[in-house]
Amino acid sequence: MTEFGFIETIRRRFADLPSNAFEGIGDDCAVLPVGGGESLLFTSDLLTEGVHFLRAATSARELGGKALAVNLSDIAAMGARPVATLLSLALPADAAGRWAEEFMEGYHALSARYGVALVGGDTTRSEGGITINVTAIGRCADRCIKRRSDARAGDTILVAGVLGASGAGLRDLLAGRYDTSLAALHRNPEPQVDEGQWLGEREEVHAMMDLSDGLASDLGHILDRSGLGAEVETARIPVAEGADLRTAACGGEDYKLLLTAAPDAAGRLAADFAARFGTPLYPIGRITAGSGVKWLRDGEPVALDWQGFSHY
Amino acid sequence: MTEFGFIETIRRRFADLPSNAFEGIGDDCAVLPVGGGESLLFTSDLLTEGVHFLRAATSARELGGKALAVNLSDIAAMGARPVATLLSLALPADAAGRWAEEFMEGYHALSARYGVALVGGDTTRSEGGITINVTAIGRCADRCIKRRSDARAGDTILVAGVLGASGAGLRDLLAGRYDTSLAALHRNPEPQVDEGQWLGEREEVHAMMDLSDGLASDLGHILDRSGLGAEVETARIPVAEGADLRTAACGGEDYKLLLTAAPDAAGRLAADFAARFGTPLYPIGRITAGSGVKWLRDGEPVALDWQGFSHY
Repeated sequence: MTEFGFIETIRRRFADLPSNAFEGIGDDCAVLPVGGGESLLFTSDLLTEGVHFLRAATSARELGGKALAVNLSDIAAMGARPVATLLSLALPADAAGRWAEEFMEGYHALSARYGVALVGGDTTRSEGGITINVTAIGRCADRCIKRRSDARAGDTILVAGVLGASGAGLRDLLAGRYDTSLAALHRNPEPQVDEGQWLGEREEVHAMMDLSDGLASDLGHILDRSGLGAEVETARIPVAEGADLRTAACGGEDYKLLLTAAPDAAGRLAADFAARFGTPLYPIGRITAGSGVKWLRDGEPVALDWQGFSHY
Repeated sequence: MTEFGFIETIRRRFADLPSNAFEGIGDDCAVLPVGGGESLLFTSDLLTEGVHFLRAATSARELGGKALAVNLSDIAAMGARPVATLLSLALPADAAGRWAEEFMEGYHALSARYGVALVGGDTTRSEGGITINVTAIGRCADRCIKRRSDARAGDTILVAGVLGASGAGLRDLLAGRYDTSLAALHRNPEPQVDEGQWLGEREEVHAMMDLSDGLASDLGHILDRSGLGAEVETARIPVAEGADLRTAACGGEDYKLLLTAAPDAAGRLAADFAARFGTPLYPIGRITAGSGVKWLRDGEPVALDWQGFSHY
């Protein structure tokens, strides 16, 4: 079974339980309204040695940052501010001392950068490799929460940065080239924490999520949840230096924001974003009344076997 | 470094970060007041194959229940009601199909029993053994939250059930005797979810926690956090059938509640508890102005090398 297949099975199996006011599985985070026009948001990500990282290719400090970054990205993807995390670490004997301390330094540095508290977790011995689970908690005004399910037909589709650098970096790492700039980008993702909150404040932004599994896969989640389709002009996908178009569309772990916005406001939104952050929002296509992604080349449909990236 | 040593190192290292209104590391759960006289509570527990369980000795269904139970116990230990969980699973190929489905059945059954929603999580492949992380979220009226730090000199110390069954069951499991009733108790802990909320409502209850690492270790946490000592009459420790006194005091994973209560109200509290739940609250000693645990035999101090149980 694929990861998404298993998650969908679980979602259906647990649908008979009370929601206790939570919006649960199906978006980047679970959402709990707490009154006063505010909600709390919750997300968990699990990293396992040999699947998400190789100890030889990633320093403990880098991994401490990355384990937190991927969770902060999920919080930002809904327009929220990260406020706290719980960290669980299963450590084999050879990672329990110095390695663990350096991991915590990387985790601390990124926590400090965004003012995120560490409020709990668990540590245990591991008989296998290192396993890391982070649960992140965010806060957001209800009116600012951006969901995958809120795309509207006609919306402009935008991405908040260039794509493919992380995928190209992973290619370098798997080839044993640990010291390239792309490999460094793969190990040190920058979650768009400020950008996500800024976009959350903008009413013309409808749907939003972060690109963790690749555009080809993740855009599909917005379409599935919104019951709509999309046309994407492949020449408009912003390709990172050193990456190719296919990696930009299918590679994982770029952690850039993907959003849809009212078409008449998208130009102004992008201009304001560029003025605030110094980088563009790239329009790559539009939401349609259909289903699935239609890839275009110079306005004409092209058949592409692009698939997302899977850790499963 | 021990688990508690590492956690204390982390707590100090992260003390420079903003709390964002959380009460963080140091109790069974982190606590976040959300207004309206209510708080949310958060806890995470990590279980790893070969350390917390052996696949040959524990069914997938039992483990699904236990992974949730230990977290519900932490929520109940502060007087709160569990409302939701996030579940992260790292699964090797030979546990990804049937094993995972049966695990989810056990998790579902206990979730349904207490009306707890499953609102998120993560699933991934594992190159080693099975690793499970659960983050549980609870809700509680602020006035009902019971902390480790709230014991008072003179308080009566009580435990909400007999001790040592789980430790004796673990002994059976490690000897290859998987089919004893004690081994079954070890694999199927019953968190005191209703009892914890009932005790939370009682003002005469001051400090509370759950017994996961054994009385000898866990009572020490109440004393450390409250800046007090204790005298425990060893003959009053309630020993489960099939266990011995030392296992009752030092064995882990009984998941019974340990509490301190105003001495003039403790008798009435125990009587009301017995009327409500059909089982006693056992008074085992009293909180003193000193520090550490003094074990007594017929009122006289005895030197015992009792230590808690550690998974680290």
